[in-house]
Amino acid sequence: MSELPSRESLLEANAAYYQAFESLNMRAMLALWEESDRLFCVHPGWQALYGREAVMGSWRTIMSNTGRIRFTLTGLRAHIDGLVGRVTVHENIQSIAGGQRHSASAIATNLFSFDEEEGLWRLFHHHASLAGSPETTDIVN
Amino acid sequence: MSELPSRESLLEANAAYYQAFESLNMRAMLALWEESDRLFCVHPGWQALYGREAVMGSWRTIMSNTGRIRFTLTGLRAHIDGLVGRVTVHENIQSIAGGQRHSASAIATNLFSFDEEEGLWRLFHHHASLAGSPETTDIVN
Repeated sequence: MSELPSRESLLEANAAYYQAFESLNMRAMLALWEESDRLFCVHPGWQALYGREAVMGSWRTIMSNTGRIRFTLTGLRAHIDGLVGRVTVHENIQSIAGGQRHSASAIATNLFSFDEEEGLWRLFHHHASLAGSPETTDIVN
Repeated sequence: MSELPSRESLLEANAAYYQAFESLNMRAMLALWEESDRLFCVHPGWQALYGREAVMGSWRTIMSNTGRIRFTLTGLRAHIDGLVGRVTVHENIQSIAGGQRHSASAIATNLFSFDEEEGLWRLFHHHASLAGSPETTDIVN
């Protein structure tokens, strides 16, 4: 049973991405990215990563080094152009890693492609850039 | 006479964007962006701008405050998905503004939409983020 690309399903796919990240669920992250070599990913402050191997490798690194991460998304906008869905969003990020609390604000471009056979959006492009300076504080027990 | 969307024409549209910027040609910049409200633009280190008015206003500001700017583009990749063209590129930027030389490296996502009636690609999304720290030096006469 296939579905048509809709703004609602695009927003669900975008939400699934942040849910996979927050739950540090590598299996979900692997599944929601497209199986292709055109993958492109820029994590805030990182260099660009190209292709499935490099992108998924970065997720393994991030997930194994993150204790907790929470996103508050603001200014979310979604557009569909044929089988391409574009979501732009402000990511307000709170995380714990390496015994420290980090807070950062980023702007993200997320591009999804609609797989007509499966009736699913798959992420193929994530470009996140810092908006303002990130802050780090030690966790005092 | 309309043209089909091709990788070659997409690369030409991307080159035209950088040429318009280098020549500080506001008329060319106005023409190559789509006439729509879905425009999205992040200049390196800036907040996100939405809609034609905000985006073109930013270009007026940038162009009137820039003496000279030159781009060396590396790692350019282009993909077409229906009528959407995606270009990712490293921008190595040298500029002169406010009596100072600036050099910066940025990663850009440029999205174009193919106008079938006109046979032209139009830019609707530019997301550029700094890769590394920009450098500024005074110009000594």
